[in-house]
Amino acid sequence: MLTVAIPKGSLLKDSIASFAAIGLDFSAFLEKGNRQLQITDPTGQAKAMLVRNGDVPVYVESGQAHVGIVGYDVIREKKPQVAQILDLGFGGCRLSVAVQKSSPYQSALDLPAHSRVASKFVQCARDYFRELDLPVDIVPLYGSVELGPITGMSEAIVDLVATGRTLKENGLIETDLLFESTARAIAHPLSYRLNTYGLSDRLRILKEQLANN
Amino acid sequence: MLTVAIPKGSLLKDSIASFAAIGLDFSAFLEKGNRQLQITDPTGQAKAMLVRNGDVPVYVESGQAHVGIVGYDVIREKKPQVAQILDLGFGGCRLSVAVQKSSPYQSALDLPAHSRVASKFVQCARDYFRELDLPVDIVPLYGSVELGPITGMSEAIVDLVATGRTLKENGLIETDLLFESTARAIAHPLSYRLNTYGLSDRLRILKEQLANN
Repeated sequence: MLTVAIPKGSLLKDSIASFAAIGLDFSAFLEKGNRQLQITDPTGQAKAMLVRNGDVPVYVESGQAHVGIVGYDVIREKKPQVAQILDLGFGGCRLSVAVQKSSPYQSALDLPAHSRVASKFVQCARDYFRELDLPVDIVPLYGSVELGPITGMSEAIVDLVATGRTLKENGLIETDLLFESTARAIAHPLSYRLNTYGLSDRLRILKEQLANN
Repeated sequence: MLTVAIPKGSLLKDSIASFAAIGLDFSAFLEKGNRQLQITDPTGQAKAMLVRNGDVPVYVESGQAHVGIVGYDVIREKKPQVAQILDLGFGGCRLSVAVQKSSPYQSALDLPAHSRVASKFVQCARDYFRELDLPVDIVPLYGSVELGPITGMSEAIVDLVATGRTLKENGLIETDLLFESTARAIAHPLSYRLNTYGLSDRLRILKEQLANN
């Protein structure tokens, strides 16, 4: 049976709408009080697993899910061996460098060498500063990264920005844009090539629908 | 000013009680609707940062916090350069190997070589299976690890078990115990040695209080 990995959290609702557009109904995940992590489409054509956004590529890479939806930021950070099929357009945000508004830094290049940069996007941050040829210490923080500059733990952060409200509330401003991110449909390369359970057909339909909207 | 790192989540309440026992009041973090991530004790003796359990050692290691409370599981997984001062006794749980109840495996050693083991405790899992001299593929999953064996993604998991309810609900049983975990007080080694802001005095008092309870 076609198996899909759907991300919990902010991408959930639009992900379910994307599958609905190609005839697969996983709306049971949206029901209040739902505790199920695996459901089957009412027509019995496919099943879905509800997993963390960051875990989606792991399921797809291993072939345990044939297709999944995940933020581009995760793809950039984890570099999974999956086929990147479609930009779904929703879930827009950006990965940015931010510093304290009161600091003298107007871009990442203004940071003193060996500054500390807090981020949960350790690889992306490392790659970005390496390209700038600016040696910094990346401090891995997995929650409330904005505390970094406030507490003096780090001179800057690299973090996802959607509305910018969290930055503003914490007196931070963006200086550099690493990349823009949106939700992507990813597939297990072999399943996609072999059109397993009509996977590539369905994704082609989804692509056409996106183009018409 | 003495600065402490307090973990969000399940260790929060008891952590605040531990500091209260040595005269530091951070109960404002427990107020409903609290959005503050940094507060000062009403007597002005110390300030506290509210951070993720997994981030506590990062703050303490860098000296940004002089002392913090964190689960022993995090210390084992991340191996931070901090002084492990006290076992606080609360937050008890264990890191275990679990498999599907219906599987033929009764211990980790029954797993076929090159089985997949899902875990967010990648280092602990790797170390454990290396000691067993059993080659397995560790699959890093950061949410709902129990989905691993259910979906066929992995033969086993290595995960924290508190009550055992999640395992039971998902048809899994524990086979091996890696270690027991409780909350620990950790300190920046130099701050502890130098008794910065009376840090070691306070921790000695906390130790005596624990011994008397």
